[in-house]
Amino acid sequence: MSVQQQSQGLLAKLTKEFVRLPGIGQKTAQRLAFHMMKANKEDALRLANAIRDVKEFVTFCVQCRNIAECELCEICQDPKRDRTKILVVEEPSTLFAIDQSRGYKGLYHVLMGSLSPLDGVGPADIRVKELELRVQGGGVEEIIVATNPTIEGEATAIYLTKVLKPYGVKISRIAYGIPVGMDIEYADDVTLTKSIEGRREL
Amino acid sequence: MSVQQQSQGLLAKLTKEFVRLPGIGQKTAQRLAFHMMKANKEDALRLANAIRDVKEFVTFCVQCRNIAECELCEICQDPKRDRTKILVVEEPSTLFAIDQSRGYKGLYHVLMGSLSPLDGVGPADIRVKELELRVQGGGVEEIIVATNPTIEGEATAIYLTKVLKPYGVKISRIAYGIPVGMDIEYADDVTLTKSIEGRREL
Repeated sequence: MSVQQQSQGLLAKLTKEFVRLPGIGQKTAQRLAFHMMKANKEDALRLANAIRDVKEFVTFCVQCRNIAECELCEICQDPKRDRTKILVVEEPSTLFAIDQSRGYKGLYHVLMGSLSPLDGVGPADIRVKELELRVQGGGVEEIIVATNPTIEGEATAIYLTKVLKPYGVKISRIAYGIPVGMDIEYADDVTLTKSIEGRREL
Repeated sequence: MSVQQQSQGLLAKLTKEFVRLPGIGQKTAQRLAFHMMKANKEDALRLANAIRDVKEFVTFCVQCRNIAECELCEICQDPKRDRTKILVVEEPSTLFAIDQSRGYKGLYHVLMGSLSPLDGVGPADIRVKELELRVQGGGVEEIIVATNPTIEGEATAIYLTKVLKPYGVKISRIAYGIPVGMDIEYADDVTLTKSIEGRREL
């Protein structure tokens, strides 16, 4: 480590923290750290505070595992939402992307993952049981499976069908408007809406 | 703005703060915000604190404008540095990159920009006067100009030469050519031309 680097311990520390973020390499992290250094204090602290606030006040909805600021998220609380439909996703970020596209007005269920036997992720490790309980609770007519178009996502969709079919609910899968191999959260709004409209019964 | 977005005010706020960073678009910012949401609290707060610390304790060296934790940076304070040479860069991040390469043991001077008449950046807006004062102060034998190989960087180099030549110091420009390890056939035309122009006798 050069003298310069030692003296810039705090900047190096910030760079290291940026490197931990997904998709941020060493050079980008260094650029971000220098940007923070040059930015006015107010702007920089606003980012620090925003991170703090998210960790302090944002939690997960007890029902659907969406991001929430109370026990139930705004979607689960919203009386205008169609409670006969539950759209199942792997991650809260996918839920967020789908809901921003405004093509869907029902409820959600976040699995917090997908079946991946090779990584040791089995049905007990994702929120399938919780979904089953919601279906058992009654009032649900359709489950729309929006797991990613990957091997794990497909396996999860098939498993969900097997588990939920006995309850007599309609089970559908969003249409392949989504390019295979692409994460749902990166799709554009029109594609997302199309894929929800074009869902097929499983 | 959808209901979901409103409900996730804090997450949206964090996303907005990430978007302000250079090279971070809307989707990446959202991914980063969700990452923060999912990361354990300790990790997330470490980033927040690192930003805070940088703004609190890191400042710029009064002499060279390098990043510093006291009035003078470690380099300007270092008695082992060759005080007869000043290497001139546009940004502190360039200084950092050059110093990490360990090929140079003199002092630095950060201009904090480059001449760009179209953007209204004139000689008074970058730290040329400060460099002139350092040369006037005596003891400086060589100014090494390491501004970027852009139109602005070239204009700045020419301007510096004009201003500093009367003081009788040697003024040099770092070599621009083929990066070590790169195949010559992949170099762009300007780089090739520069590297041929800058050829040295063997």
